[in-house]
Amino acid sequence: MRQELNIWLIGGDRRQVRLAGLLAEDGHSVHTLGLGPAAEGVTEERTPAGAALADCVVLPLPAAAPGGLLNAPLAEAPIPLEQIFAALRPGQIICAGRVDGATHALARDRGLALHDYFAREELAVANAVPTAEGAIQIALEEMPVTLHGSRALVIGYGRLGRALAPRLAGLGARVSVAARKYADLAWAEGFGFATEHTGELRGWLCGYDLIVNTVPAPVLGEAELGELKGECVVIDLASLPGGVDFAAARRLGVTAVQALSLPGKVAPATAAACLRSTICHILHELGV
Amino acid sequence: MRQELNIWLIGGDRRQVRLAGLLAEDGHSVHTLGLGPAAEGVTEERTPAGAALADCVVLPLPAAAPGGLLNAPLAEAPIPLEQIFAALRPGQIICAGRVDGATHALARDRGLALHDYFAREELAVANAVPTAEGAIQIALEEMPVTLHGSRALVIGYGRLGRALAPRLAGLGARVSVAARKYADLAWAEGFGFATEHTGELRGWLCGYDLIVNTVPAPVLGEAELGELKGECVVIDLASLPGGVDFAAARRLGVTAVQALSLPGKVAPATAAACLRSTICHILHELGV
Amino acid sequence: MRQELNIWLIGGDRRQVRLAGLLAEDGHSVHTLGLGPAAEGVTEERTPAGAALADCVVLPLPAAAPGGLLNAPLAEAPIPLEQIFAALRPGQIICAGRVDGATHALARDRGLALHDYFAREELAVANAVPTAEGAIQIALEEMPVTLHGSRALVIGYGRLGRALAPRLAGLGARVSVAARKYADLAWAEGFGFATEHTGELRGWLCGYDLIVNTVPAPVLGEAELGELKGECVVIDLASLPGGVDFAAARRLGVTAVQALSLPGKVAPATAAACLRSTICHILHELGV
Amino acid sequence: MRQELNIWLIGGDRRQVRLAGLLAEDGHSVHTLGLGPAAEGVTEERTPAGAALADCVVLPLPAAAPGGLLNAPLAEAPIPLEQIFAALRPGQIICAGRVDGATHALARDRGLALHDYFAREELAVANAVPTAEGAIQIALEEMPVTLHGSRALVIGYGRLGRALAPRLAGLGARVSVAARKYADLAWAEGFGFATEHTGELRGWLCGYDLIVNTVPAPVLGEAELGELKGECVVIDLASLPGGVDFAAARRLGVTAVQALSLPGKVAPATAAACLRSTICHILHELGV
Repeated sequence: MRQELNIWLIGGDRRQVRLAGLLAEDGHSVHTLGLGPAAEGVTEERTPAGAALADCVVLPLPAAAPGGLLNAPLAEAPIPLEQIFAALRPGQIICAGRVDGATHALARDRGLALHDYFAREELAVANAVPTAEGAIQIALEEMPVTLHGSRALVIGYGRLGRALAPRLAGLGARVSVAARKYADLAWAEGFGFATEHTGELRGWLCGYDLIVNTVPAPVLGEAELGELKGECVVIDLASLPGGVDFAAARRLGVTAVQALSLPGKVAPATAAACLRSTICHILHELGV
Repeated sequence: MRQELNIWLIGGDRRQVRLAGLLAEDGHSVHTLGLGPAAEGVTEERTPAGAALADCVVLPLPAAAPGGLLNAPLAEAPIPLEQIFAALRPGQIICAGRVDGATHALARDRGLALHDYFAREELAVANAVPTAEGAIQIALEEMPVTLHGSRALVIGYGRLGRALAPRLAGLGARVSVAARKYADLAWAEGFGFATEHTGELRGWLCGYDLIVNTVPAPVLGEAELGELKGECVVIDLASLPGGVDFAAARRLGVTAVQALSLPGKVAPATAAACLRSTICHILHELGV
Repeated sequence: MRQELNIWLIGGDRRQVRLAGLLAEDGHSVHTLGLGPAAEGVTEERTPAGAALADCVVLPLPAAAPGGLLNAPLAEAPIPLEQIFAALRPGQIICAGRVDGATHALARDRGLALHDYFAREELAVANAVPTAEGAIQIALEEMPVTLHGSRALVIGYGRLGRALAPRLAGLGARVSVAARKYADLAWAEGFGFATEHTGELRGWLCGYDLIVNTVPAPVLGEAELGELKGECVVIDLASLPGGVDFAAARRLGVTAVQALSLPGKVAPATAAACLRSTICHILHELGV
Repeated sequence: MRQELNIWLIGGDRRQVRLAGLLAEDGHSVHTLGLGPAAEGVTEERTPAGAALADCVVLPLPAAAPGGLLNAPLAEAPIPLEQIFAALRPGQIICAGRVDGATHALARDRGLALHDYFAREELAVANAVPTAEGAIQIALEEMPVTLHGSRALVIGYGRLGRALAPRLAGLGARVSVAARKYADLAWAEGFGFATEHTGELRGWLCGYDLIVNTVPAPVLGEAELGELKGECVVIDLASLPGGVDFAAARRLGVTAVQALSLPGKVAPATAAACLRSTICHILHELGV
């Protein structure tokens, strides 16, 4: 992607605004639609008429809003997805994030193929870092003790758990990791963490000052929450419906925070840079 | 300090309230005055009459408020320091924090000696940890990029710098340390940080995403602040008058945060535990 | 595996000797054959006659030696694999390490099934730790500079690379990771390492003080080795045939060390403990 | 020290040889005497006649050998210190390492002042790093278990303890630090280590896999060594007479290693670079 490309960003939030700036800094010719006033070096468009000429079109994350609309909170008026797709041409490279089945189908009807950048592992891995930092920010804000010297439990040892556990340890927390697979437990041990089986947490939860769940399955129900000591803070990072029974937490007086979509909130500049890298990888793989 | 002692806590804030609870948990007989309603296991006193019987009296941090008063924000009415000192007896163990000259003199007039717990190095060292965590919380809240991958400068490599630098590195920041003494620079290098001379920062500041000052001397004036890139965040942890020209920062549009007394704010439970340890050390050294 | 089991260990090296001791400490009834004099609490057997009664039979890693023999360097005389298999009974739990096709076939002929513990991911993950420590020991022995402040390149970011890179960084090395997949590169970045593409190393190798290869493919040939600076140390951890052209290294005067089977050499006690865990997992999954 | 200087290195070992090379690379005119054949860019001298013209003379570490000789193991024949001092002129900058009283007196008699670079804190701090790496190398070589997951005790929390403890932790050891002063213990806690009082070790030593002493006082006598478990490894880094009763260790069968002067042995190139920095600091402070 060394030559100058014609790139259109259509819809999205502050991340896409920053992404437009980054791509312009890279020397590309960048056009935005439905993203508000364009920054210096970026051309604001009022209609999608010219988008068919783009080498690459970037739709937001997620691509669609309810009602067949483009996800475009910064646009002056709602933009139907169909209107955008009608302006694009088959064979064009179109990137979009977290594309649902209806949107894929709508695109296919027009002969368009969407490359879902959110489905790429390198973006998921890269997003784990700002998510972990966001979780640490919440922990620092909510806990009455320092992370240093506290006992923290990370439930799940996928991308998020692997990004979060060493950061908590780097701040001096004594970290336990709960997982189900022997290999995950072996990894956690290899990085120096104490380990627990996720299915056998009950009876062992009273010692923690912080519990962060990353597993999208019900792991902290009323029984588990009832074991926690008074000042324990619970953070749920798992995508909806999450893994914490928040109604029970309220009844029990447990401090429980549901934190979603942290990357765009806590570090929009970094989130945009991750998007840029991933889109470059897609273009590179497509031979652009 | 294994036997049960009679301990009075007179004045102070939430930290002292928690300290009272911790000492009561240790099995001591704990009395509070001017600290609001006492928790379970602690006796609330209305007058200092019984304080002369205490094995140890703990005054707040700082001990004095303006106007010859005890620092007692939770008391129902102002308490003159003289009234407290009048109730104590010469030879009694009296601990107080950050004692100014006037207060020392007032105590001496009554034949009382104050042990300043804030002057003890182990408390200053222990307080560096919650201060560092507070600084990281501010950085996470204010920065548009992740700490991970960012460039951070820590000015000063005393207690605070030594607590902060590894924590920033533990979160993935690339950390430089600025100091003046060759030995401090050698320490910083030995812990893996890049080093700068504090006196030669000008001309090298444009690359940082975060600058944390710990030196109570004017190190970041208008010229230095003018070099920073737009999104750089500055945090000043140095005790007043600090090391950052905040008026210049406002003029230049630099995000600069002055953060003082972080331990009590960000981690009152930990701050209280540190106080307890230090008071135990004082008692231990006095043969109690 | 809480009840007392009858376990036979047949053949192997010092690791198996230690494994016998560990299993005996766990309260099992342990028998050894071809492992030299038994330690206290372990019964030395002279023939496999009683092995058919075992709840679990453990063969070595690797199971076979050339010529149809059991891998039993501590035995007084060679032991044919057939002789062992003849003494076992179909349905018995038999664990063995790195089982080749011929051995599997030989067992199948007797109606025996071998559970290959070396094929289990948790053992491979656990073995990465002593391997990484062994590599660090070699680096410390061979390098004329400290690891602290040195530039180190880890080629490959699988189990071994992920165990090694943070340990080098923990000792103060500035670590780069070379990989091919975007996701691996994203992981390496997320852990704070600089990244390189394995296929594009040429032209960038002159700065390193240490290069550790973990990839079993030819990555460091004559051209790459010719770029290294005089004092650079190369360690090849990849299984045979490895990834370094050692003949070229000799011609060029490059210090290159091939290090194989490090876990048993550098930390036999830890290697035995890893084996124990893995065998317990196998038994647990089989419902024992 | 930006301009080209005339520097003489007289006597010393491999470190001084490398130091000569480093100073020549910096652009200085470098002369060696009693250091064997000179490398490219360095002038080998046969007599000290020209040394009086040097801007800076560097004597070895330690400066003197027994019998009034210069410490010059690489020289063809013994060189009396007096002969060297006779060739120098009062007012000349003469650096030397670990200068004893007799040598200082001898120099003073000639009107010469010796700047002891070994007495400078930044060199002592910098030397702690290779010493710590050397200790880790010994631990890796001697221990039957991995450092990862092992229990390690570091006795003393001065320069050496502070360099060693985080490196052991970086390799996954669970590290305890023993010290005497409350402030040192607070530092150790602030860096996440468990703490022990050096005077109260007896009765608590049976759990360790590794003990490293850095305190030059008798801390591990027969009683302490008798508590250790069979496979515990003891390393004594304290300068002579050290802190370990080695005769008792032999009687008890404890693996105990005395390790002295590690920097020059394990990382001569790094040790030379540290010397260069320190000599530059001396010259800088003297206004050269």
